[in-house]
This record gives sequence, structure tokens and C-alpha cells, in this order.
Amino acid sequence: MNSNVPWEVWSRERQRRIEEVLTRALARTALQAPETLGDAMRYAVLGGGKRVRPLLAYAAGEATSADPAHVDDCAAAVELIHAYSLIHDDLPCMDDDTLRRGKATCHVAFGEATALLAGDALQSRAFALLGQASIERAGAACALLAEAAGAAGMAGGQAIDLAATGKPLRLQELDTMHRMKTGAMIRASVQLGARCGRALAADEATALDAYAMAVGLAFQVVDDLLDVEGSTASLGKTAGKDAAQGKPTYASLMGPAEARRRLEVLHADAHAALRSFGTAARRLAELADWIVTRNS
Amino acid sequence: MNSNVPWEVWSRERQRRIEEVLTRALARTALQAPETLGDAMRYAVLGGGKRVRPLLAYAAGEATSADPAHVDDCAAAVELIHAYSLIHDDLPCMDDDTLRRGKATCHVAFGEATALLAGDALQSRAFALLGQASIERAGAACALLAEAAGAAGMAGGQAIDLAATGKPLRLQELDTMHRMKTGAMIRASVQLGARCGRALAADEATALDAYAMAVGLAFQVVDDLLDVEGSTASLGKTAGKDAAQGKPTYASLMGPAEARRRLEVLHADAHAALRSFGTAARRLAELADWIVTRNS
Repeated sequence: MNSNVPWEVWSRERQRRIEEVLTRALARTALQAPETLGDAMRYAVLGGGKRVRPLLAYAAGEATSADPAHVDDCAAAVELIHAYSLIHDDLPCMDDDTLRRGKATCHVAFGEATALLAGDALQSRAFALLGQASIERAGAACALLAEAAGAAGMAGGQAIDLAATGKPLRLQELDTMHRMKTGAMIRASVQLGARCGRALAADEATALDAYAMAVGLAFQVVDDLLDVEGSTASLGKTAGKDAAQGKPTYASLMGPAEARRRLEVLHADAHAALRSFGTAARRLAELADWIVTRNS
Repeated sequence: MNSNVPWEVWSRERQRRIEEVLTRALARTALQAPETLGDAMRYAVLGGGKRVRPLLAYAAGEATSADPAHVDDCAAAVELIHAYSLIHDDLPCMDDDTLRRGKATCHVAFGEATALLAGDALQSRAFALLGQASIERAGAACALLAEAAGAAGMAGGQAIDLAATGKPLRLQELDTMHRMKTGAMIRASVQLGARCGRALAADEATALDAYAMAVGLAFQVVDDLLDVEGSTASLGKTAGKDAAQGKPTYASLMGPAEARRRLEVLHADAHAALRSFGTAARRLAELADWIVTRNS
């Protein structure tokens, strides 16, 4: 693909690409799963989602001149972790949600027990892919992904979210929660994608991480604004549920206007962090724009 | 430690050792988890359990002359996967059990949502440890563990178990279920432990795997017999629950006497598989004896 194609073309091609990679990774012959379990895993992963994390991995790979074929496993692994977290997050004992990506949530479609196991098995599948990926130091990559997904990252952020429901939270605590809940996996997506290409100098790695942190928080601010301003139809998930569940959000804590101003600062931070990469970071910059301006 | 010490001394030393490794792996400073989540993870893992899988890893390490210090991360990783599976298995949507290792199950003690997340985060922790372990090809080790834990292994076996409750199952189907549900992780424990030492010839790897498969199935037959014959107090978990839940077991399918005969065959198979290793496989042989004769 010509590297000068517009963002829309590039991102659509990468979304198509990751769909194929995920389809292969979850194919019957690859999974060797009992039928219903395999169906639940495919149902939860395939044919939906914006694929933000895979796009981040591919875009970071572009910044380090990685062959997209070498990024595939990393991109799939981060999406599988994301998909598993959505299944578990939607369970009755968590958010108890019935709608996701415009269709019934996994436990509504397959029952709670199968949904629980499908989430568990998707987490395993992520490490099965990444562990045998054709990248250097695949073990270290697995450790990086595991830290981001685990108690100090995504799962920890969900635990804070759980404890915070119905309680007042300070802005700093909300930041901490989101840095863990969504930010950790967004950073991991960028780091893993970048590892697939040339080695980075320390200041380049720091810059990429600053980009990822800004984009991660921006992503969450947009999510909060959309939950207030969007409709269930356009989101493909239940709108207004944060407020209904008494969850603290940037919109509720700062007000939508102030939240929008914060979003602009984070957007600018993301672009500033990419400066030293020049045109190699084009896709990362465009991805930041896309995340900030998305409406679903 | 003198390599000629009796099994009781060796196994007690290794159990003490893995307790320390797990305690370090789940320490506050290592986990960086929100407090309640970290507490739930430690509650579910520490201070209980026979540590069969870590013992298998250490014993397999002895067979390949591995330094036990090099086996620690593998031994901890397999136990963390096992502990996570117990938490999720005990949840109301699964077996809905209230007693485990002689104390309240994790969701009874911490609530369902925290228990769900603790299980999720323990799975991640296993890969965080194994990914940075000081072994060769840590990525391949992660992939091996992930395959054993995932849809073609443990999680898949649980899905079959789920679907089989209350239905008649043929012996062959019961074997398949257990080969996945417990057997896959027992094989992984042996394989990972063995990888920590000298490289194995193909026939040696095959022999170790035959040992692991026999021991894995034997372990399950004993479990079924204990569920029928044991007491809740001696088991530290609810006795008789398989029958109460209408789950097919070796005891119910073959009758206890026939199940005992099958156990003897598997026991002999395990010993036969170790023959070519000579005295190096002493701990594996003793472990097979221990598994077959255990009463809790």
C-alpha cells in the first residue's frame, strides 16, 4: 500500500487486515475449542469494534518502520485482551449490560458461564499469539502485555471503577483510574507495535509513551462526553449508563465544556510528543485526530 | 538440600519454597494493585493448596538437572493459573461453591465482581512472571502455558464440564474433558519445569509427556473417588458435590472399584514412562505415588 494514502484509506485497510488476523486466530482449527465456547469467543471479537488498539499498534509500527506483517500478532493480542475485558465488564456482577457493539452482550447471547470462560480463554489466546510472535524477546513482550492487562493496569483500573461507583472522586483519582483501566492497554498497544520495528533511543521511547498517555486519557474524555451526548444507536452500547450508575466521569466532574478544553490540551500534547519522529509518526498523529473527533 | 532426602522432606521444602515465591510475586510492591483487589488475589493463592502443579514443575526440573531457582517462575506461573481457575470455577454462574481450601471461596469473602477481577488479574500475573523468567525462549514458554490454560485446554475442559452437567457422558468423553480441564495444565507444569534444565531428546520429551498424561488422569480419578469417599472436613472443599450437581465422574461411570483398578493402571503407566530417566526422575516417580495415595 502506498504510504501516502489518506488516513481513511490507511485505517480502513488496517481494520480489514486485523479482522483477517483475528479471524485466523480464532478459527475452529486454530482454537481447537469446544463448539459453543469457540462460538462465544468469535461472537465477542469478530465483526465489530473500532479496533483502536490494533490501529495504535500498526501506527506505532509505522513510526519504527516495522513491516505490518510483523505487527499482526501484537495487534491481535491487544484486541483480544480488550475483547475479553468487555465480556467480563458486561457481566451481571459487573456493569450488567445487555448491549455491546450494537448486539446482545456475550452473556445475554451465550449465558453467563460460557461468557466468563470465553473471556478467560480470550486472555489466554492473546498470550498464545504473542508468545510465538516473530518478534525479538517475545517473552518480554508477553510480560509487558500482562502488566498492562493485570492488577497494576486494566484489571486494577476496573477494581477502582467498581469501588468508585456512587462515590465522589477527585479529578486526580479519576485520572489514576483511567490511566490504569484504559490507559495501560493503550500504552501497551503503542509499545508493542513500536517494538516490531527498529530499536528506539531512550528519548524516543519516552516520547512515544507521552503520546500514548495523552491519547489514552483523551480517549476516555471523549468516551465520557459521548456517554452524555451520544445516543445508544450511534454508540452501539447503552448511552447514559455512567450517569445512571452514578459513575464519576470527566463530564460529570468538570462539566462538558471544561472536559472539552481538557481534551484539546491532551490532543495538543499528543501531537507535541510526536515531533521528533517527523513524518514517520504520521499515522499516530492522524490516529490522535481520529480519536478526538470520533462520534461513536 | 541433599538430593537423597526422603520425599516428605523434599516435597515439604519445595512447598515452602513455592509459598515464598508466590508471596513475593503477589506482594504489595510487586503487584501495585488497588488494595482490595490485591487482598483478594493473595487470599485466593497464599496459605493453602497442595501445590501439585509447582511440585510437578520442580520434580520435572530435577529430571533435567535444573537449578530450582530457575524453575521458580514456571512453578509460580502454573499455580497462579490454577488459582485463577478455582476462583472463577467457584463463582455462582459456574459451580456456585462456598468452601475452598478450608475457607470461604473468594467471591464469598470479597464479592463476585472483585473475585472475577482477581481471577483475571491472576491469569495476567502468571504471564508477567513467566514472560520475564530467566529461561530460554520465555515467549515460547508463555505460548505453551497459554495453550494449556485456554480454549483447547483448561478453559475448554471447563466448558465441556459445564455442558455435561446432568447429561450422560461416555467414558471417552469424560477422558477428553479431564485431559483438557486438568490434564493440560499438568502437562504444562511438567513441560515448563523440564525446560528449565538440559535440553531433552525427542523421545525423552515424549516419555515425560506420557508420564504427565497418566498422572493427570490419575489425579482426576483420585479426585472423583475422594469426592465420593472423602469428607468435607478432610477435603477442605464441599464433598459429594459432583454427585449432587449430577456431574459425570469416573466413580459414577465405572463404579468405585473399577475406577480404583483404572487408577492402578495409570499409576503403573506413569512409572513406566520414567524408566529411561533412571534416578533423575526419582521425584517425579514419588510425586506419582503421592498423587495416587493422597487422601485430600
